[in-house]
Amino acid sequence: MFDIVYLLEMLGIIAFAISGMIVARAKNMDPVGVFTIGFITALGGGTLRDLILDNHPVYWIKHQEQPVLILVMAILFSYWKHADRLRTSQIVIPDAVGLGVFSILGAQLALDLGHSWLIASFLGVMTGTFGGALRDTLCNEVPQIFRKDQVYASVSFAGCWLYFFCQSLLGNEALPLTIGVAFIAIVRILAVRYDIRLQRDANHQ
Amino acid sequence: MFDIVYLLEMLGIIAFAISGMIVARAKNMDPVGVFTIGFITALGGGTLRDLILDNHPVYWIKHQEQPVLILVMAILFSYWKHADRLRTSQIVIPDAVGLGVFSILGAQLALDLGHSWLIASFLGVMTGTFGGALRDTLCNEVPQIFRKDQVYASVSFAGCWLYFFCQSLLGNEALPLTIGVAFIAIVRILAVRYDIRLQRDANHQ
Amino acid sequence: MFDIVYLLEMLGIIAFAISGMIVARAKNMDPVGVFTIGFITALGGGTLRDLILDNHPVYWIKHQEQPVLILVMAILFSYWKHADRLRTSQIVIPDAVGLGVFSILGAQLALDLGHSWLIASFLGVMTGTFGGALRDTLCNEVPQIFRKDQVYASVSFAGCWLYFFCQSLLGNEALPLTIGVAFIAIVRILAVRYDIRLQRDANHQ
Repeated sequence: MFDIVYLLEMLGIIAFAISGMIVARAKNMDPVGVFTIGFITALGGGTLRDLILDNHPVYWIKHQEQPVLILVMAILFSYWKHADRLRTSQIVIPDAVGLGVFSILGAQLALDLGHSWLIASFLGVMTGTFGGALRDTLCNEVPQIFRKDQVYASVSFAGCWLYFFCQSLLGNEALPLTIGVAFIAIVRILAVRYDIRLQRDANHQ
Repeated sequence: MFDIVYLLEMLGIIAFAISGMIVARAKNMDPVGVFTIGFITALGGGTLRDLILDNHPVYWIKHQEQPVLILVMAILFSYWKHADRLRTSQIVIPDAVGLGVFSILGAQLALDLGHSWLIASFLGVMTGTFGGALRDTLCNEVPQIFRKDQVYASVSFAGCWLYFFCQSLLGNEALPLTIGVAFIAIVRILAVRYDIRLQRDANHQ
Repeated sequence: MFDIVYLLEMLGIIAFAISGMIVARAKNMDPVGVFTIGFITALGGGTLRDLILDNHPVYWIKHQEQPVLILVMAILFSYWKHADRLRTSQIVIPDAVGLGVFSILGAQLALDLGHSWLIASFLGVMTGTFGGALRDTLCNEVPQIFRKDQVYASVSFAGCWLYFFCQSLLGNEALPLTIGVAFIAIVRILAVRYDIRLQRDANHQ
């Protein structure tokens, strides 16, 4: 069990760090800004989760290799020529992967600590969305979670419940985790690509 | 004692959730946005209080019916026709009630944990104002607490001290709580209605 | 050891509170706004540090004289005639002193709790920069940490490592603390004065 959770965590950190660094580069920030936004995007959601659940030490303090990885990524990213052509619209895939991973891992940690499915699903959504919301706020973008034209928090919420049901059926193994993460990431990417919304507005104000 | 505190807490959550949902609807957000803003407004201040005071589990994790209530409210609110006519100026009364309830309950919890009146009054102001400040920031409104034309944090602060004095005189019962909450809510509403300010500006820049 | 840490902490609180109050006055806020911004700037970074490190009670709850000091400063500041002529550009020196003090004290606390130099340096940067970032965000300024034209977080980071090396050489005494704080404050002030940057931009977009 340790391996798959840890591997997913690294995948989520890398994905969210990339999404943060793309936005930071697109905003023409210097290397310190690129690192800071990457760090906050990748570790913000999990830090909020650990604070609310009183789960100490906070995970990136326990796993120092994670901030080091983000530091190395930021250095490479800052001096990578091709990064000049990046645009904020290119974060869809890494952002969706990060959303999927952190939603499911946030929910799983809440379950491990003995909380109900309901509380776990709220914690999952918070863990999945908070890092990206900070990234967008700090870079003066409207956070994805508040854009009317896209499903975001609702995919995270649905994915958490899908994960709970798969886990009940299949036991607490790698397969339910993978299903939950894949569901959120794929539905999110499809929603952006095909412009799926939860509610059409009747009134345009 | 439990009953009145719990009833006030539910009142404050409902009031702040309504204020958040009004702003979210006025900004034409979808149901997920309405829920998210309602949730953050209603539970943000208390979460900050519990984190700073190291009071775990955070109160809405202990009382799962509170997030469930906000979820139900958000669904009703999103599909309620009349909500289309709501404007952000209509939040004055629910916002004032939420400010009163959470200021006093935040201060009371700090007292319960053995802190001084001074620290309790600061915690009261934070608990009362943080949820609303998050609501306004996320919805691109200038937070009430920073609007020069209205008293906000100062009413919360004064109400906490009024509560401490009443409590000293009358004992730790329902009456001082009610007085403190009512004072803050009423003074706040009157201040908005009659445009009361702490300081007239001499220079307009 | 207690004395120098406590004295530095008071120095940092006063410096950051002044920087916050200058910005609040320049934005024409009322006395409550001046106090609130001063409080958040001075105590925000340390509060985040204490929450992430699970160091309870939070330091300003332990040291009540600190919020009282900020309250007194805010009252004096609000009714001080000369403050009308203040501009946000005048915060450079108090902001640099606050950055230096809180970076080093944040790193030192992490070391005291047994964390590595790397984790301590990240906590140092967070403690040093978070209060000022909140101040600038709340007052609608672009946070210093994200301004391309100035070194900010990088000076804090470098100062933390200079402190660790001095501490290894000289032992855990007042001198390394003073060197670290002075290095950050002085380099920061010089960087603003002589417009030193980490990276010249090749492309202006």
